[in-house]
Amino acid sequence: MRTKKSIGKKILSANEEYALKNKQLLAEHKKLCLNMISSPGSGKTTILSRTISELKDRIRIGVIEGDIQTDLDAEKIRATGAPAIQINTNGACHLSAAQISSALKQLPLDDLDLIFIENVGNLVCPSAFELGETGKVAVLSVPEGDDKPIKYPAIFARAKALLINKIDMLQTGGQADFDIERAKRDVRKLNKTIEIFPISAKTGEGMQSWYNWLLKSVKNLQS
Amino acid sequence: MRTKKSIGKKILSANEEYALKNKQLLAEHKKLCLNMISSPGSGKTTILSRTISELKDRIRIGVIEGDIQTDLDAEKIRATGAPAIQINTNGACHLSAAQISSALKQLPLDDLDLIFIENVGNLVCPSAFELGETGKVAVLSVPEGDDKPIKYPAIFARAKALLINKIDMLQTGGQADFDIERAKRDVRKLNKTIEIFPISAKTGEGMQSWYNWLLKSVKNLQS
Repeated sequence: MRTKKSIGKKILSANEEYALKNKQLLAEHKKLCLNMISSPGSGKTTILSRTISELKDRIRIGVIEGDIQTDLDAEKIRATGAPAIQINTNGACHLSAAQISSALKQLPLDDLDLIFIENVGNLVCPSAFELGETGKVAVLSVPEGDDKPIKYPAIFARAKALLINKIDMLQTGGQADFDIERAKRDVRKLNKTIEIFPISAKTGEGMQSWYNWLLKSVKNLQS
Repeated sequence: MRTKKSIGKKILSANEEYALKNKQLLAEHKKLCLNMISSPGSGKTTILSRTISELKDRIRIGVIEGDIQTDLDAEKIRATGAPAIQINTNGACHLSAAQISSALKQLPLDDLDLIFIENVGNLVCPSAFELGETGKVAVLSVPEGDDKPIKYPAIFARAKALLINKIDMLQTGGQADFDIERAKRDVRKLNKTIEIFPISAKTGEGMQSWYNWLLKSVKNLQS
C-alpha cells in the first residue's frame, strides 16, 4: 500500500506541474480557460457550438476536444469556424495537463479571448485532475436525473458554474420527475458560490445568462 | 515508466485474483451474475426495479449497488422486496472485485437465481475491471446520443447484452436525432455476438425480450 500510495502521489505531482505551467501561460496571455466536465451525452459539444456561433461577433473562442476515440466533436466545432484541437486519450478516462500543454501550443492563443476544454464524458475522474484551467464548468442534463449532484458530488463542489441542460425536456412529460429546485438546492449545499444556468442548447432558452457570465468573465480577466 | 507499469500490473492482478474467486463462487452455486455498466442517469436502477418486480414470480434476484456516495439506489431496490447490498466507493470511479467478494458474502446466495451488480455510473472505467461476473450488460439511453458506441467503444465491445433505454424519448421530438439503427450497426461492428434490446423501463416497451433473455440465461446456467 505504501508503494502504491507514493507512486500515486508522484503521478499527481507530474500532472500538477504541467497544470501550473498551463495556468502561468494562460495568466500571462490573460486568457480565460474553462474545463467542461459532464457525463457522456449531456450536450457539451452542442452547448459549445451554439455559444461559439452566437458570440462570434463579441469574443473569439478556441476549443480543446478530449475524447477517448474519434474526432467527431472537433469536426463539429470547426464547422462553426472556431479553431479546435482534438486529443484522443485512447482509453484514458480524463484529460491530463500534459495533453493540454501540448494542445495550447497548437492553438492561435493571441487571436483568442476564451479557450474551452471539453473533457472526456465522465462525471467522476476528470474532476480530480487539474489542467491549469481558470475554472471548471459542470454540465448536468435533465434526463440524467436530479439526484446526480448528491451521488457524484466532486465536480459540483469544484465547479465555478453549472449548466443544467436540456430544460426543454422538462416540458415533454418524459422527465417531469426532474425537480430543478431540488438540483439547485443540492448543488448549493456543496458549493455556495457556484453560478447555475438552466439552459437548452437546442432551443436557446436560458443561453443569454450564460453568455453574459462568459462575457463578464472575459472582461474581468482582460481589464 | 517501468516502475509504474509493474505496479499497474500488480494492482490489476490483485483485482483479477478476487475476480477469479468470485467467478468460482458463482459457478459453484450456479448463479448468473450480470455487471450493469453505463453513464450516470441512463436508467440502470429503474431497469432493475421494474425487472425485479415483473419477474418476482419466476426468478429470485439480488442486487449489489455501487455508488460513489449515498444509498439511494439500494433503498429503491429494497422497495421492490429484493435484497440489496450498497457499496460506497467514496470517490473511486468503479467497483472492485474485492468489494464484490465482500458483498456476495452478505447476500443470501442460496435463495437467489440472479445477482445484478449495478456499477458506478461511468461509461469508461468500470469496463476495465473484471468483477468475476458471468457477463457485462451495457445500458445506453436515447438522450445520450447515438454516437456513444464509437466514442466510448470499450464497454460496447465487451458486453454480452446492450439495453438501449428511454426509447419513449424517440417519440417526443426532443431526440429525433437518435438513429437507433445507426447505434445498433456501430455496436455490432465492435461486437458480433451482442444481444441488443431497445427498451423503455418507464413505459415497459420492449422489456419482455430482455426478460426472456434473462430467464433463458438463468435456465441454461442451472441445467
